[in-house]
Order: sequence, then structure tokens, then C-alpha cells
Amino acid sequence: MADIWQVALDHAVAIARQAGGVVHEALQYDRTVMTKSSTVDLVTQTDQKVENLIIQSVKQKFPTHRFIGEESVAAGEACDLTDAPTWIIDPIDGTTNFVHAFPFVAVSIGFSVNKQMEFGVVYSCLEDKMFTARRGKGAFCNGTPLQVSAQNDIKQSIIATEFGSSRDPEAVDYIFSSLRDILCIPVHGVRSAGTAAINMCLVASGCVEAYYEIGIHVWDVAAGSIIVSEAGGILTDVDGRAVDLMSRRIVAANNRTIAERIVKEIRPFNPPRDDAPPQQ
Amino acid sequence: MADIWQVALDHAVAIARQAGGVVHEALQYDRTVMTKSSTVDLVTQTDQKVENLIIQSVKQKFPTHRFIGEESVAAGEACDLTDAPTWIIDPIDGTTNFVHAFPFVAVSIGFSVNKQMEFGVVYSCLEDKMFTARRGKGAFCNGTPLQVSAQNDIKQSIIATEFGSSRDPEAVDYIFSSLRDILCIPVHGVRSAGTAAINMCLVASGCVEAYYEIGIHVWDVAAGSIIVSEAGGILTDVDGRAVDLMSRRIVAANNRTIAERIVKEIRPFNPPRDDAPPQQ
Repeated sequence: MADIWQVALDHAVAIARQAGGVVHEALQYDRTVMTKSSTVDLVTQTDQKVENLIIQSVKQKFPTHRFIGEESVAAGEACDLTDAPTWIIDPIDGTTNFVHAFPFVAVSIGFSVNKQMEFGVVYSCLEDKMFTARRGKGAFCNGTPLQVSAQNDIKQSIIATEFGSSRDPEAVDYIFSSLRDILCIPVHGVRSAGTAAINMCLVASGCVEAYYEIGIHVWDVAAGSIIVSEAGGILTDVDGRAVDLMSRRIVAANNRTIAERIVKEIRPFNPPRDDAPPQQ
Repeated sequence: MADIWQVALDHAVAIARQAGGVVHEALQYDRTVMTKSSTVDLVTQTDQKVENLIIQSVKQKFPTHRFIGEESVAAGEACDLTDAPTWIIDPIDGTTNFVHAFPFVAVSIGFSVNKQMEFGVVYSCLEDKMFTARRGKGAFCNGTPLQVSAQNDIKQSIIATEFGSSRDPEAVDYIFSSLRDILCIPVHGVRSAGTAAINMCLVASGCVEAYYEIGIHVWDVAAGSIIVSEAGGILTDVDGRAVDLMSRRIVAANNRTIAERIVKEIRPFNPPRDDAPPQQ
């Protein structure tokens, strides 16, 4: 099967670059915004257009494959990860950044078989950085191998996280309390790129030691997760247990020491799972 | 005098680009860290080397001009802004980013005459973006004119801020309380690039509506301040009054409506002024 997945990865890279072109063009003339779950959960016509472009292109080449796409799920499709080859797509990770032309905007394409990530592609369009990883074959940015930071001292670390799109007071309480406790360990600093996919690529690149967030979706982190692990990093749940990409909770870190240290400060909570049955 | 300052601006651009080259090179082999006011207030040999490079180069060309440089002040020089032509220099704004190779690292050079900013240059080395502005002549990025966002609705805005390098519990309380209240207005999002100079260039570029921070220094914001105002933005103190670049408090916004709205949520505090007499 090895060759098939290499062909699929090559296709993912090509289509991510094409999608990046659409994003670039749209930045010039079309950033009209609609909202989804809240007034700060944004979507644009470009998200939908790019997701369509990717799905149609993949369907032509791999007609039996399945899809989990952010906009398809928003439109009512199921979010089930089966053993079948599945493309997990966020057409624009960082839609809020896109709307504001903030320089971190990514096309994220993960590919899973037997519920295991086989490859991931994150194209940071405005930086023109193509991050790729294939299981067992390492992670790369524009062809250069990636390696996580070797730092073991949390006090010499930068941590990335986001406030997310929930403004529910209880969730905000938990987010602020965790963040404050991490900041005051103290760490060197906290950064927010505004996209989970790029935050994870920053971990893989060694620019930040760890990224954590509660509230992300499987399409935000599927591709990034294999990029982090193939760059030598690790993934856990925010409570330190095994990561579950459907749980909407993630820690991506350079190593277990740093992951365990920030897990101590995170107050976990449970957003509805991505694969929860739809509410009647 | 017009021609003299254009010559000085041209020199600032050339030396900023040269300094960027030193930063790039140092990223590969020398990111050894020392600390200043706290364990998270970092400095490297490259900061000192770059500041020296800039000051020596300017002194040769403009022997009567004065300097305020981050590392010179740290080494005991006075931080006085007089009417004399004064170069206000942060050799590496975003030293923590530099240490981690996080992609936002800037060389910041402001130039003031009669206590008024005449021009500013911010070179974002890793992005290769040269931001420039001259009083009355507009602001530019790599030669393209900059314009702040036209947004008047705070709820459609992104706000940039930083946690800074103080971990004093009272300051952290104020910072978190202000940030939470701004997030929950609600705004589209909050971002932290990790450098004041680049945060201000993001305001000037229209990517974020406003940036505010308490605890920055004059060398962090001098160049950025004129880039924001020449891009059509405004500057105020965090209490809404006139900005004072020595006060270590700043709001840079696309317009007065957005500035006034975030000022309502900021809990001001007073770090020691940059021009305070040295403690005995």
C-alpha cells in the first residue's frame, strides 16, 4: 500500500498549493463573513469553495475514499472516523485571520487509514510554507526536515494556545485560569498564531515547545498531529492521557517532560465531541 | 531640513537590512541567552552586537545625533528624549522570539527631532518585510502603501496584546482582567506576535484593529508609532489620554472609536517610566 499513500500525499500537496492560490486571490477581493456557532465563529464563501475544490479533486482520483471536512460537517454531514481511508480537511484553518489578512492562514489536509494518521499536509499560504509528514518518514517544511525543540526546562519554553471561539463564561474562566498558571510557572512567553494547524507546525519546527487547546476540532489538528509526531514530538490529551482527535482537546509538545508540566496547570473541560450523535 | 531626514531614513533602512542579516546569521549558530530584569526578560549577544552596529554606523554619518538604545540603557546610559535629533533603537524587538526562532523578529529604528517622531523603520527580518514611515509622507511595507483597517465595530475586530515580561502577580492580575474583558466584548480574537514593533505594523497593515500594552519601552514603540499614525491610525495612552512614549503604556488603533472602546476595558497601572531618574 506504500505507493498508494505516497501518491495520495503528492496529490494532497498539489491540491493544498492550488487551494492556497484560491485563498491568496480571495484575500484581495472577497472576505465577506458569515457566522456559525457564535458571533465570533466565522466562515466565508472561500472556506466552502476551497473545501469543495479539495473534495472534488480527491474524489476524482480516489473515488472510494471518505471525507471529514469542516464545512461539510457544518452543513450536516456525519463526522465519523472509520477504518476506511479518510481525508480530514480544514479548507482554511484560521478563518478569522483570513478575514483580517493576518499572516497565519493554513490549508490543512490529514489522511487516516484504520483510524491512524498516514500523512498530513499543512500549507501556510501567506508564508508560503508547505509542511508535510508521512508516517515513519519524518516531517518537512518546504522539503527541509523538521525537528522539535530539545528543551526540557519549562521555564525556558514558549507555549502556544488560543482563546478559541467560545465566549461561554465558564469555558473562558477555565481557559484564563489555565493560561495564567502556565504563564506564571513562569515560561518565556505565550503566543497565539490564531490557527491550530500552524501552532502545531510551530511545535514541529522547534519555535514553541508546546501547544495546547480545548475546543478545537479534528479537522484543525489531524494533519498537524502527524507533523508533530514525525518531527519527534508527542501528543496527549489535556489531562495527560492518550490523545483522542475527536475529543476536541489536545496537547502537542516537544517531549513528555514539557507536556506533563503544562498538563499539571490545565483545567480540563469537555466540549461536545466531534463524533457525538447530532442533537434531535 | 527635509533632505537631511530623507538621507537619515535611507540610512536607517540600509542599516536595518544589514542588521537583519546579522540576526539571520545568528539564528543559525548563536542564540545563547542571558536575562535582565527577570528570568523571562531575555537578552543575547546578538542584541548587543546589532545595537553597536547600528549606533556606530549612524555616528559615522551623523556625529552630532543622540541615541536611546535598549542595550545602552540596560548598560546604564540615560534614557532622555531631548529636542536633539535622536535615534531610538531596539536592535531585536522580540528577543524571546529570536531565541526560539519564532517567525516574528524585528529591528526597530525610530528617529525623533524636537521630541516628535520624524520617521520609523521596522524590519521584520524573518518575514523580510521592511516597514517605513516618514512624517507627513505615509507608511509603507516593502514600498507598498499601508492603510489601517476601516472597521468601526469592535465586535468585528482583532486585538493584539502581550503578557510582557513581568510576572509580578498584581501586574498579571491587571493584564488578565483587561484581556478577559476585551475578549468578551466579544471581539473576533486576540493575537500575540511577541513583539510590540510588529504588533504595531499589524495595526498599520489593517490585519488587527488595535494593539495595546502596558510595560513596553520607548524603543519598542517609537518606530511603530509613526508607522501607525502615517497609515491613518491613532495612538493614545491606555487611559484614553494623549500618548506619552516614555510612559510604558500605549494603545495603537485604526481609529478613535475602536481605541475608546478598548480603553473602557483596560485596567491601567504604572510601571516605572523610561525617563525616571535612576534609583540610588
